[in-house]
Amino acid sequence: MSIKEEALKLHTDHKGKLEIKEKVSCTTPYELTLAYTPGVSYPCLEIAQNKSDVNRYTNRGNCIAVVSDGTAVLGLGNIGPEAGLPVMEGKALLFKHFANVDAFPLCVGSTDVEDIVKFCKMLEPSIAGINLEDISAPRCVEIERRLQKEMNIPVFHDDQHGTAMVVLAGLINGLKVVGKKKEDCKVVISGTGAAGSSIIKHLYRYGFTNIIASDKDGILRQSEKEQYNFLKQELLECVNKDDIPYADLREAMVDADIFIGVSAPNLVDEDMIRSMKPGSIVFAMANPTPEITYEKAKAAGATIAGTGRSDVPNQINNLLAFPGLFRGLLDAGAVKMQEDIKIEVSKALAGLVAEEDLSADCVIPSVFDERVVPTIAKAVKEFCERTGNTR
Amino acid sequence: MSIKEEALKLHTDHKGKLEIKEKVSCTTPYELTLAYTPGVSYPCLEIAQNKSDVNRYTNRGNCIAVVSDGTAVLGLGNIGPEAGLPVMEGKALLFKHFANVDAFPLCVGSTDVEDIVKFCKMLEPSIAGINLEDISAPRCVEIERRLQKEMNIPVFHDDQHGTAMVVLAGLINGLKVVGKKKEDCKVVISGTGAAGSSIIKHLYRYGFTNIIASDKDGILRQSEKEQYNFLKQELLECVNKDDIPYADLREAMVDADIFIGVSAPNLVDEDMIRSMKPGSIVFAMANPTPEITYEKAKAAGATIAGTGRSDVPNQINNLLAFPGLFRGLLDAGAVKMQEDIKIEVSKALAGLVAEEDLSADCVIPSVFDERVVPTIAKAVKEFCERTGNTR
Repeated sequence: MSIKEEALKLHTDHKGKLEIKEKVSCTTPYELTLAYTPGVSYPCLEIAQNKSDVNRYTNRGNCIAVVSDGTAVLGLGNIGPEAGLPVMEGKALLFKHFANVDAFPLCVGSTDVEDIVKFCKMLEPSIAGINLEDISAPRCVEIERRLQKEMNIPVFHDDQHGTAMVVLAGLINGLKVVGKKKEDCKVVISGTGAAGSSIIKHLYRYGFTNIIASDKDGILRQSEKEQYNFLKQELLECVNKDDIPYADLREAMVDADIFIGVSAPNLVDEDMIRSMKPGSIVFAMANPTPEITYEKAKAAGATIAGTGRSDVPNQINNLLAFPGLFRGLLDAGAVKMQEDIKIEVSKALAGLVAEEDLSADCVIPSVFDERVVPTIAKAVKEFCERTGNTR
Repeated sequence: MSIKEEALKLHTDHKGKLEIKEKVSCTTPYELTLAYTPGVSYPCLEIAQNKSDVNRYTNRGNCIAVVSDGTAVLGLGNIGPEAGLPVMEGKALLFKHFANVDAFPLCVGSTDVEDIVKFCKMLEPSIAGINLEDISAPRCVEIERRLQKEMNIPVFHDDQHGTAMVVLAGLINGLKVVGKKKEDCKVVISGTGAAGSSIIKHLYRYGFTNIIASDKDGILRQSEKEQYNFLKQELLECVNKDDIPYADLREAMVDADIFIGVSAPNLVDEDMIRSMKPGSIVFAMANPTPEITYEKAKAAGATIAGTGRSDVPNQINNLLAFPGLFRGLLDAGAVKMQEDIKIEVSKALAGLVAEEDLSADCVIPSVFDERVVPTIAKAVKEFCERTGNTR
């Protein structure tokens, strides 16, 4: 069977990928009395007196929502909320499997920012976190910011920040392999959408100061600020500070130390890799076909190459980040998402590759490395506790 | 341990009563590929071409939401959405345990009718039914009607109709025991809130034509229509057609054949029972203390007595209805809730008491009778199919 046939069969055989499971028994009249009326009234009354007890007496504290409007599903685009549901169920499956987080997959029947904001806010009494998913830019940024400001639970848009956290982890280790310092590196990023913007800000926050960004309209320039939307305008605080007038991505990549691609397939050729500085790092993550394949990048002289693919070394997969991140947030009882939590995740992830295992083909752990989720969760929880980000 | 201590312990020991369960395995890279990217894109594309395939490839077709705003939780009143969550989790637990229906317990952070309507409508791409719960009257009626009109999935408010379906089942069997016909019976109902209103309409629809209703403001009168809210005005189509000027409940109960109470504890005394016709049926369901206890009603001459309690015969429990109802609606792929479905449920439930078992103390099956859910589900499914109420 082809992967298409197998994937369709898997989904029809089970009619989806998750279900509800009972944590308590209700097979006798007495058990029913405890779990439902009249027994259930006692936890209700306790919570009525002290709202925050809701996480003691219900599953709320382990429960999040995976919310999408189906406008930017995988690489498929705006296919609608129904068609996006298999992805959200898949995401919820990964949350449960990798981090024991209970996630409700909710694809919503509106693409209006106000509607989605209101919907999410109304969920707050029932859940302890929100993972936004596959919502098109720049609406996704607007929604995330509104919710972060207006809700008292952590809200996180994985398409923006998931890849960013893993990219930085790969770079932390990659720099050790090639023996360079972040301050000295010229970083070129192709793509300024949801993921690209977050990567740029995340790397800048960590201390990469020389970043050049490129998208389908060309190289980001300080001098063209007026023509940009709010998202791209913000990026100018992090990129091309000297307003260098590179003609295009090809020109920008000359003498670059690091290339990061979150844009389009086959955008980078071997000559462009050859023009980079020795000890180059190339993370080409367009999905499913990267900007340049692992093999071509290596053949053209990249010291380290990574992609989103699982069939070559250095898979940059956001699955490395989001389960442990939410496990940690829930364990801490976090009331918000903080920028610096993402730095903690990157560092914790990088730290999982032992010095003796570190090599050009091993800058990032495997998604099946069982230490990943507990290690990230611990780092996140401790950071939240240290900074008073707890209920 | 007291029931309070045991109930609190049950809820804290497990931190709530349900969790998410994986239906498919994702322990190998290949399994991950099928359940998530890139394999998941194939079901997404199928659904994008044909929206209704969402129930083939996801759990949506078995999935409902239990939605409350926490304004009328059990007998506790407006305790807020957080404090209502243990009840909604309990309801979801019962849905899963008794009918294998996957329900998300969602307590919403708004009591505004428009907000709740919008919230529920936005859920439609992800769920195949809505069970409204513990929302105060008359907002609950307004919300249910709006959603029934504006959504393409069945919407059902259990507090209104759950008890009504079981009461009618008990009356169908009760009339056989006492040898009366519905057309000949005088029915007196105490309580015109969510449950009372639904019982009145349900009994009238089934063919009880002589119904007198009473609430804290007195006996419902045609001549006082102008003073009533929209809900009570509607009831005048079903009650006191001759506008009889009973002074109060006590006077109304003289010569009644049937008394139904969904009002307040201890409202009915033995003299009032004695004033009823021979072969009287008394269902006193105020919770947890009925209008008159089973023992007192029987001592005062009621031929049949029933309450909401499990420790005496004839427990009128809505748990007898909602699991099978939703199982049937989901099995049929129903697109709406119909009034006549409720009649089918009452008949199916009544039919489960075999002629030879039928007695004054056995007019309704037990909630632990394993035939209840499949029998009701089958009746509902067949009715939906017969009337074209399918996707």
